[in-house]
Amino acid sequence: MTLRLSIDKQDPEPVYRQVYNQLRAAILSGELAPGSRLPPIRHLARVAAVARVTIAHAYEQLEAEGFVESRAGSGTYVASGVHPSPAADAAIDRSFLPTLTEWGRDALALERPAERNYEADRPEIDFGFGRSFAERFPYDIWRRLLSRYLSTDDAMLSRYGSAAGFFPLRQAIADYLVRARGVRCRPDDVVIVSGAQQALDILARLLLNPGDEVLVETPGYRDAFALFRLHRTRLIYLPVDGDGLPVDRIPSDCTARLAFVTPTHQFPKGGTMPLSRRLALLEWAKAGDAIIVEDDYDGDLRYDGGSLAALQGLDRDGRVVYLGTFSKVLFPALRLGYLVLPPSLNTPFVRAKSLVDRGAPTLTQAAVADFLSEGHFERHLRQLRRQYGEKRMILVEALNEYLGERVSFSPVAAGLHIMLFAQSGVDEAELVREAAERGVRVYAGAPYHLEASPPPSILLGFSGLNESEIVEGVRRLAAVWPDGHG
Amino acid sequence: MTLRLSIDKQDPEPVYRQVYNQLRAAILSGELAPGSRLPPIRHLARVAAVARVTIAHAYEQLEAEGFVESRAGSGTYVASGVHPSPAADAAIDRSFLPTLTEWGRDALALERPAERNYEADRPEIDFGFGRSFAERFPYDIWRRLLSRYLSTDDAMLSRYGSAAGFFPLRQAIADYLVRARGVRCRPDDVVIVSGAQQALDILARLLLNPGDEVLVETPGYRDAFALFRLHRTRLIYLPVDGDGLPVDRIPSDCTARLAFVTPTHQFPKGGTMPLSRRLALLEWAKAGDAIIVEDDYDGDLRYDGGSLAALQGLDRDGRVVYLGTFSKVLFPALRLGYLVLPPSLNTPFVRAKSLVDRGAPTLTQAAVADFLSEGHFERHLRQLRRQYGEKRMILVEALNEYLGERVSFSPVAAGLHIMLFAQSGVDEAELVREAAERGVRVYAGAPYHLEASPPPSILLGFSGLNESEIVEGVRRLAAVWPDGHG
Repeated sequence: MTLRLSIDKQDPEPVYRQVYNQLRAAILSGELAPGSRLPPIRHLARVAAVARVTIAHAYEQLEAEGFVESRAGSGTYVASGVHPSPAADAAIDRSFLPTLTEWGRDALALERPAERNYEADRPEIDFGFGRSFAERFPYDIWRRLLSRYLSTDDAMLSRYGSAAGFFPLRQAIADYLVRARGVRCRPDDVVIVSGAQQALDILARLLLNPGDEVLVETPGYRDAFALFRLHRTRLIYLPVDGDGLPVDRIPSDCTARLAFVTPTHQFPKGGTMPLSRRLALLEWAKAGDAIIVEDDYDGDLRYDGGSLAALQGLDRDGRVVYLGTFSKVLFPALRLGYLVLPPSLNTPFVRAKSLVDRGAPTLTQAAVADFLSEGHFERHLRQLRRQYGEKRMILVEALNEYLGERVSFSPVAAGLHIMLFAQSGVDEAELVREAAERGVRVYAGAPYHLEASPPPSILLGFSGLNESEIVEGVRRLAAVWPDGHG
Repeated sequence: MTLRLSIDKQDPEPVYRQVYNQLRAAILSGELAPGSRLPPIRHLARVAAVARVTIAHAYEQLEAEGFVESRAGSGTYVASGVHPSPAADAAIDRSFLPTLTEWGRDALALERPAERNYEADRPEIDFGFGRSFAERFPYDIWRRLLSRYLSTDDAMLSRYGSAAGFFPLRQAIADYLVRARGVRCRPDDVVIVSGAQQALDILARLLLNPGDEVLVETPGYRDAFALFRLHRTRLIYLPVDGDGLPVDRIPSDCTARLAFVTPTHQFPKGGTMPLSRRLALLEWAKAGDAIIVEDDYDGDLRYDGGSLAALQGLDRDGRVVYLGTFSKVLFPALRLGYLVLPPSLNTPFVRAKSLVDRGAPTLTQAAVADFLSEGHFERHLRQLRRQYGEKRMILVEALNEYLGERVSFSPVAAGLHIMLFAQSGVDEAELVREAAERGVRVYAGAPYHLEASPPPSILLGFSGLNESEIVEGVRRLAAVWPDGHG
């Protein structure tokens, strides 16, 4: 038997691995047949011009993995259990298709926005939205907090966290929510999740059966729509007005067991649900035995005074699930969100979460906990409010100057974007295209709407742009915005 | 109308919030009826002995939230839309119980291990297992890697990551797996998850229908059992021997469409599946159109030479899903795991994941990517292997000295624990209790077994103990270990 080994001593792969790889391939391909004898170590070492110990090491590895067997005093043989196949080391067959479940087919079929490639194809001015660009994020403080645990509390890092989250973080969040958002909760009611999607998915699995109705706002949060659809529920949608969901227009035959709302700052249209509607919504939930999911995705970002108290704080039945996130006010890359759960849902949620995901990184949670409890968070928030409040004002002034009567939008000074509504007859897709030709990326409102013929609308995020970019972007947008009525 | 305000200037709550809270409570309770007029600002300021601007601020907040309305020239009135209720500000009613789905009831009913309270009730010697205690984890390097991104790449932190994971990390993992674990993959095949549970949950949702059979090992990974049960599948279990799953004993009528195996180092019994069984398992999967999930939870931790190549590397049909984790070799608190998916499952998995969880923290992913690609990972691994290899040897020697013939265990030098099998008739629960009375915590093997009358067994983790604790712990355990045969 001739066995050619090709050894490259410049290769970063250790020489013994090169020997191993080549022998393994020869066995799997059948070149070295089951039961055949491998060359003696000293022989192969000489032929390949490597040390004997190197060959011995490769043989040991092959033996440990069952490719070869050594017989005392007789040498090393290809194991008889190996069934060589010429294709064994070949490329993976891509024709095999597993049968997906109904859920899997639904997940695959759901229309999803393409993942953005932020590097390629970057426009001159991008009115991207939904993320915070904290130019003045206190990195020094953040680094200090991370370092604190990295050097001293080894024990904390070497254990799995609680599925409900790191307790000091739950405590810090509860303190903040009670104080700043009017939420009524204790630390135990707070559960840490990776974000709103995970929270909604687990809630849907706990509460929604296929065919159940879910009440949602339109326009609304498309990822929530996708998730509720994935659970085969029926979306009952109501167009929002300037005050959020028009509760008095919920159809009397609506049997929704879950309502998903954004009362503090309607997403993405803007507007705040007044107290009377909030109380009516709570009444509706009680009458219909429904749960309300309050998505307070940017309740911290109001620029005209204090934040509005959360709907959750008015709930006296334990029917409101409050969703919050750090993605908007710290940075999305943190991937930390939280829920405040009513007592009845706490155990089921945490139990379910412990089965499907063991928890968020403890280190990040510990750092965020200190960031909150030591006051850095609210200091940072004040700065963000000033910074984003100014940017929003500049955008509003530019819109008034360049677009004026041609658009309408919510006057509520909050959040990280403005949704412009055009006069009927305006072709929003055409607008997006024409703006892009002028180096300005704006976002079509249609994907956020559920109704068949939504009013034409455009989303403009302002958090990632500076003053002159905002003004210039609006100027260029106005140049392609039609004057006419539909 | 008399309105009593109780102001405490020592309270950390700002005075205007105290005023706001008390007026809000009075409105919600009906003490201040809808339509009634609030005291003029100057009057209330005098009565409460606070500045007028403070009362004005509270009124503004109440107005912003819809509790009151100001009428020009006439004063401030409780909004007519408020429907006061004496209970509105009372404690949340804990009697409300939402109707859970079947899934929710299953999740709640599944027996789960209690979350350990690591601080309280800490025994003198705890043979806890499944986690790495890296006394010499290179914190300085880790801090440097985290800082690198915290100070320079703001843009990276301010965007949502890809659902499949941070690409440079996927690349670094693919490089490592090809080189060190014999996995055949490209970076695109690697998907980052929060851990094995998330990976299994999404795979089960994609592939398993209620009533489907799933082939598993016993003893085995109880969290995987719980998850498969939650999906209402039928567990077909085979007792493993010293070489892992006895593939030739898979019942011929088994219709499992998924097999969950630990071929590199059987969990928790120990032992390594030889090549012949691996090839037979791949044949079985092909014949039955099944997917094999290979959980390589500690494949990096072998103390007697190189790691064994993964089963995945032998797969030529694209039927093997490879699961890996950083929890064992870096620290559990990282919460980062990964899968290598066959081409056919890649798009469905990533699509599903993007719907239920937007992704792991980018910063952590970036730091781990550099930790791998700059060689720190393998350097750390070599140190861990030396450190844990020594601890395991000490444990083995102590077991041989103090327990000798009374126990058996796998000779494979790998992992972070040893599973001891006692002679039949030994009462493992009694053993655990008696050891605890002597300050030694050991873990019963029964929860890891699926068969009705499993052989008595005890799990001993050695990663968190030093040499003298290991020896002393075994000495005490031996003192309560019965001699007799069953």
